[in-house]
Amino acid sequence: MSEQAKVGIVMGSDSDWPVMQAAGEVLTELGVAWEADVVSAHRMPTEMIAWGQQAHTRGLSVIIAGAGGAAHLPGMLAAVSPLPVIGVPVPLKYLDGMDSLLSIVQMPGGIPVATVAIGNAKNAGILAARILGTSDPDLQQRLVDFQAGLAETAHAKGDVVRRAAAGAERRLGF
Amino acid sequence: MSEQAKVGIVMGSDSDWPVMQAAGEVLTELGVAWEADVVSAHRMPTEMIAWGQQAHTRGLSVIIAGAGGAAHLPGMLAAVSPLPVIGVPVPLKYLDGMDSLLSIVQMPGGIPVATVAIGNAKNAGILAARILGTSDPDLQQRLVDFQAGLAETAHAKGDVVRRAAAGAERRLGF
Amino acid sequence: MSEQAKVGIVMGSDSDWPVMQAAGEVLTELGVAWEADVVSAHRMPTEMIAWGQQAHTRGLSVIIAGAGGAAHLPGMLAAVSPLPVIGVPVPLKYLDGMDSLLSIVQMPGGIPVATVAIGNAKNAGILAARILGTSDPDLQQRLVDFQAGLAETAHAKGDVVRRAAAGAERRLGF
Amino acid sequence: MSEQAKVGIVMGSDSDWPVMQAAGEVLTELGVAWEADVVSAHRMPTEMIAWGQQAHTRGLSVIIAGAGGAAHLPGMLAAVSPLPVIGVPVPLKYLDGMDSLLSIVQMPGGIPVATVAIGNAKNAGILAARILGTSDPDLQQRLVDFQAGLAETAHAKGDVVRRAAAGAERRLGF
Amino acid sequence: MSEQAKVGIVMGSDSDWPVMQAAGEVLTELGVAWEADVVSAHRMPTEMIAWGQQAHTRGLSVIIAGAGGAAHLPGMLAAVSPLPVIGVPVPLKYLDGMDSLLSIVQMPGGIPVATVAIGNAKNAGILAARILGTSDPDLQQRLVDFQAGLAETAHAKGDVVRRAAAGAERRLGF
Amino acid sequence: MSEQAKVGIVMGSDSDWPVMQAAGEVLTELGVAWEADVVSAHRMPTEMIAWGQQAHTRGLSVIIAGAGGAAHLPGMLAAVSPLPVIGVPVPLKYLDGMDSLLSIVQMPGGIPVATVAIGNAKNAGILAARILGTSDPDLQQRLVDFQAGLAETAHAKGDVVRRAAAGAERRLGF
Amino acid sequence: MSEQAKVGIVMGSDSDWPVMQAAGEVLTELGVAWEADVVSAHRMPTEMIAWGQQAHTRGLSVIIAGAGGAAHLPGMLAAVSPLPVIGVPVPLKYLDGMDSLLSIVQMPGGIPVATVAIGNAKNAGILAARILGTSDPDLQQRLVDFQAGLAETAHAKGDVVRRAAAGAERRLGF
Amino acid sequence: MSEQAKVGIVMGSDSDWPVMQAAGEVLTELGVAWEADVVSAHRMPTEMIAWGQQAHTRGLSVIIAGAGGAAHLPGMLAAVSPLPVIGVPVPLKYLDGMDSLLSIVQMPGGIPVATVAIGNAKNAGILAARILGTSDPDLQQRLVDFQAGLAETAHAKGDVVRRAAAGAERRLGF
Repeated sequence: MSEQAKVGIVMGSDSDWPVMQAAGEVLTELGVAWEADVVSAHRMPTEMIAWGQQAHTRGLSVIIAGAGGAAHLPGMLAAVSPLPVIGVPVPLKYLDGMDSLLSIVQMPGGIPVATVAIGNAKNAGILAARILGTSDPDLQQRLVDFQAGLAETAHAKGDVVRRAAAGAERRLGF
Repeated sequence: MSEQAKVGIVMGSDSDWPVMQAAGEVLTELGVAWEADVVSAHRMPTEMIAWGQQAHTRGLSVIIAGAGGAAHLPGMLAAVSPLPVIGVPVPLKYLDGMDSLLSIVQMPGGIPVATVAIGNAKNAGILAARILGTSDPDLQQRLVDFQAGLAETAHAKGDVVRRAAAGAERRLGF
Repeated sequence: MSEQAKVGIVMGSDSDWPVMQAAGEVLTELGVAWEADVVSAHRMPTEMIAWGQQAHTRGLSVIIAGAGGAAHLPGMLAAVSPLPVIGVPVPLKYLDGMDSLLSIVQMPGGIPVATVAIGNAKNAGILAARILGTSDPDLQQRLVDFQAGLAETAHAKGDVVRRAAAGAERRLGF
Repeated sequence: MSEQAKVGIVMGSDSDWPVMQAAGEVLTELGVAWEADVVSAHRMPTEMIAWGQQAHTRGLSVIIAGAGGAAHLPGMLAAVSPLPVIGVPVPLKYLDGMDSLLSIVQMPGGIPVATVAIGNAKNAGILAARILGTSDPDLQQRLVDFQAGLAETAHAKGDVVRRAAAGAERRLGF
Repeated sequence: MSEQAKVGIVMGSDSDWPVMQAAGEVLTELGVAWEADVVSAHRMPTEMIAWGQQAHTRGLSVIIAGAGGAAHLPGMLAAVSPLPVIGVPVPLKYLDGMDSLLSIVQMPGGIPVATVAIGNAKNAGILAARILGTSDPDLQQRLVDFQAGLAETAHAKGDVVRRAAAGAERRLGF
Repeated sequence: MSEQAKVGIVMGSDSDWPVMQAAGEVLTELGVAWEADVVSAHRMPTEMIAWGQQAHTRGLSVIIAGAGGAAHLPGMLAAVSPLPVIGVPVPLKYLDGMDSLLSIVQMPGGIPVATVAIGNAKNAGILAARILGTSDPDLQQRLVDFQAGLAETAHAKGDVVRRAAAGAERRLGF
Repeated sequence: MSEQAKVGIVMGSDSDWPVMQAAGEVLTELGVAWEADVVSAHRMPTEMIAWGQQAHTRGLSVIIAGAGGAAHLPGMLAAVSPLPVIGVPVPLKYLDGMDSLLSIVQMPGGIPVATVAIGNAKNAGILAARILGTSDPDLQQRLVDFQAGLAETAHAKGDVVRRAAAGAERRLGF
Repeated sequence: MSEQAKVGIVMGSDSDWPVMQAAGEVLTELGVAWEADVVSAHRMPTEMIAWGQQAHTRGLSVIIAGAGGAAHLPGMLAAVSPLPVIGVPVPLKYLDGMDSLLSIVQMPGGIPVATVAIGNAKNAGILAARILGTSDPDLQQRLVDFQAGLAETAHAKGDVVRRAAAGAERRLGF
């Protein structure tokens, strides 16, 4: 993308990409430029600090960080950057992401991480767009349209359920 | 406050105010105008919907919503507003806020809530400021200074611990 | 079904139907007319409010609402309707429905949701029938018969276990 | 009360009364006749069975049962009665009522218990009234009024928070 | 089995048999006569009460009861019998048996249930044998031998691991 | 007590005595001779092993072991003794005894511990009496009487609640 | 202390000192030189990185790090140092330290943290001594003596319980 | 192995080997000699005690013990040995290893176990190497190199994600 990325999506390993790519996809759908990289708090800590310190000077406005288990990446980036940092708890093999969630959300006073649902990188992307929309009326309007789209899809699903319900009754002999 | 509020702080009851006021205090400290009100998802649902739908047209840029137990306020406001909504899980008498946390953070795809730590309204305020700072360089600089202040305070606390540690050794007879 | 529906079964998405249809099936078995639809608290909030406000004026007597994760639908409908609302915690991919359960059951004082077991829409249907049975002696009698049927089935299962136990002993050489 | 009780409120011990009395109080407020008694699943099981079997023949329409820990009373009453049974998880000294909640809500298919929030007997009372209101238009209207009252109270609380918020700003020097 | 059963193994449904049969198998291995049946607290409550009241007069000395979810069978049998009741938490589809465990183990003062590990009916059988062994020296000796057998098996497993470890080192090139 | 103790009550520290003494008190009430001692799995492991190995040869028939946190005492005694071992999860400062419960109840196949409710040493005592009652008809009869006493007490508590309920109605103006 | 510190005890704030000082006290008791300081992962991240990178070159052999909530300090120090890092989960106001525990113990492959019990800084100190004792026979002998002392203390506590037990029996009239 | 083993890796059963072998593999990779065996706290308690008591006299410096469920092996070895004991919580069929974790980490004051992440035996091996590295500069240097290798691998993974991100954008039509 030639456009300057506004959102940086980072994760501790490429094994997080299948979860995290949904953030990028919805940002693209909403017309927001983004970049993605591996930035590991535990495996490359000094580069991670540097990446976080430079994020806002490089032109990024929002950081999305995904991590699992003892998930330190979102909080550490929030510690070195003045940008809003969105944390995505990535579920690992055990505990269903509860360890990831608590490691990300329970930050001490002074250093917030904006945490979204376990494994829900799509919502991290939408949240980043809402943040950028606070100073971009066109983007905010696209978000209003996006929500209207959700309503339409939900209405369509109502047809599916109403037909299935009618079918269930017929199948049961009414 | 004569200035137009940028952040709306809402909660389901005045009993949440002792927890939620820390959001306002830190916003004031960071020079961000805010307003606070009771907006209950369960006790005044239609007004809640209206409040959320009008928030961005009234000039608010960020919503902070605190709620406890089956905490629906942050998610419902996120459903009717294109603004970033920050959720504060308010701990109630039982379960230490775990019900509040899960009710707020586990939002379905499409409708994110930026969740902070249980009972940590101060971090909600700082997160709101970080969001506004993405389009306000002066505020972003104040956030950089704020983080520098945290470092200074931490350094000062090091003196306390170093003295206490020295005392502990003397007390134990070394 | 030409008969006026007494129970409205709603859910946030058609993906909840495989869980929720068991409510309709047992209602049909018990001779109670019902309808089903998608009503999403987060994707179509104003329609959801309207649906809830009109439920009792449209002739419904009981609402069954299924939702998962940060499950707000049952509680929001309970906030806008004077009808008894039964909540079914739908388990999602992570946390085994514990988030759904707490988001539904931990309602604040004033706005109850009658919560049933995780994923147990069948019990929601039976509970709806019990509620309607409080003013419908025929239905209450059918519920008495239904419980007698459960006992009979359990007795029959006893034969299975007694035979299996005897077989286990023979297989082990007695 | 000379009137025939419509709701039976039972609990395993008089130590549950401080929690459970809120159910009776709100029923009285809503004009619903009730009775209360100790019926212990574990300490008087045969009387408990008899009490449950006779509840609907004695004129009761709804049962509210409170219990804590391995809380079996609501489920056992639901097993012997065709009435809707509302379960109140009473929190004990440890585990914050999580054991009580799971013991009550996780009923097997066929035998539902309408579970309310941990320690929230008031909501059990309101739910009982909503159930009775399905065949009592006057009571249903009182419930509509009751919900309007909740909205009014919430509005009043808004004044408290708005004043407190203004005060917080003044105190901080604006 | 011509011998008088000393241990009664009961469960709420034949679907529990695959978990519960391990109790019978180990009792047979230890030379203890047993019987098995379906006795459901929720589906046949009056028969369940009768079964429990007659267990000791019929010659049973120990009851093993398996149940899942809101698991009331072990506690209810303990309420109507003076025999030691062993509870086996049967894991269901959600929550990994944590609901079953808490519903069984957290009994109120006066009515104990001897709870074993989630899904571990084998241990329930061994515990029943240990109980009977308190008045049957031959059985107690067989239990001593059984434990010696566990030690022997564990020693044999040591060979497996030592060989695997040696192989791992070779495979890694030492 | 000159009589030969039948039940050995052990715990890891004298700090567990305030919880554990209820086991001894109810045993005395039921006419069962007991002894109590500190036997720590972690602080005196070899003596603990010896104590466990000799328990049945010294004339004990049942072991009650209380422990908290990473509670290893009940399981280790069960590993070296053929006697039934009853485990009491002692709650410590954090986690409400959930760690104690899981450390005691989740024993591997072959080595059962009969676990009772968190902090409920009284039930451990009653369970020990039920075990001894399997070969002591007089004791079993005392247990039947004990349960009848529980029913009587529960009936008496019913009076308290019925009076309180009547009072509540009068106080509310009926 | 003039002696070169072998163990560095660090924590995020002086508010952790009341928990963490027990580590220093037991190290002093065991004759191990230590130092203590505030090193905050979130408030002074670059200094934290530098502290961790220099720890082994400054002569430290073991790091003890205490932290609460989203506890990142132990893991981040383990990421920048080749020394063994011991993590102490400090319990905060909510969740009883479960968030602290999971944030510390669930480290990804490659970067271990040696985690001790919630709030148990004393054990962190003993573990540090055990580590140093692997190359210091005198210290290892002191640890052997320390464990012998634990056994003696436990024996003495046995007297307390035996006397209390005898008293309990007398008090109950035997 | 001709070299004297420095690390003893033990587990309760050969079924733990697939989890535990990763500890041996990384130790071999780091050039540390090790041995592995089955030592069961519950199935061969006296041998377990003896194994633990002799570990340091046989030349071992670190013990790694894996166990699941009511996991007593690491704590019991720590009770009889002055060596640092590393505990690996092995996840069993239910509860995702949470029971194993709490049974291992929540040790009482005086007897620490260095606990690593659920199922993460690799980290146990690295931690053992870090411990040995405190008195072996060559090994400590290999650990520094090992961490540098982690950073390199993480960098390489960044390429994967950056390419995937670019591909995602193209696929979405940019």
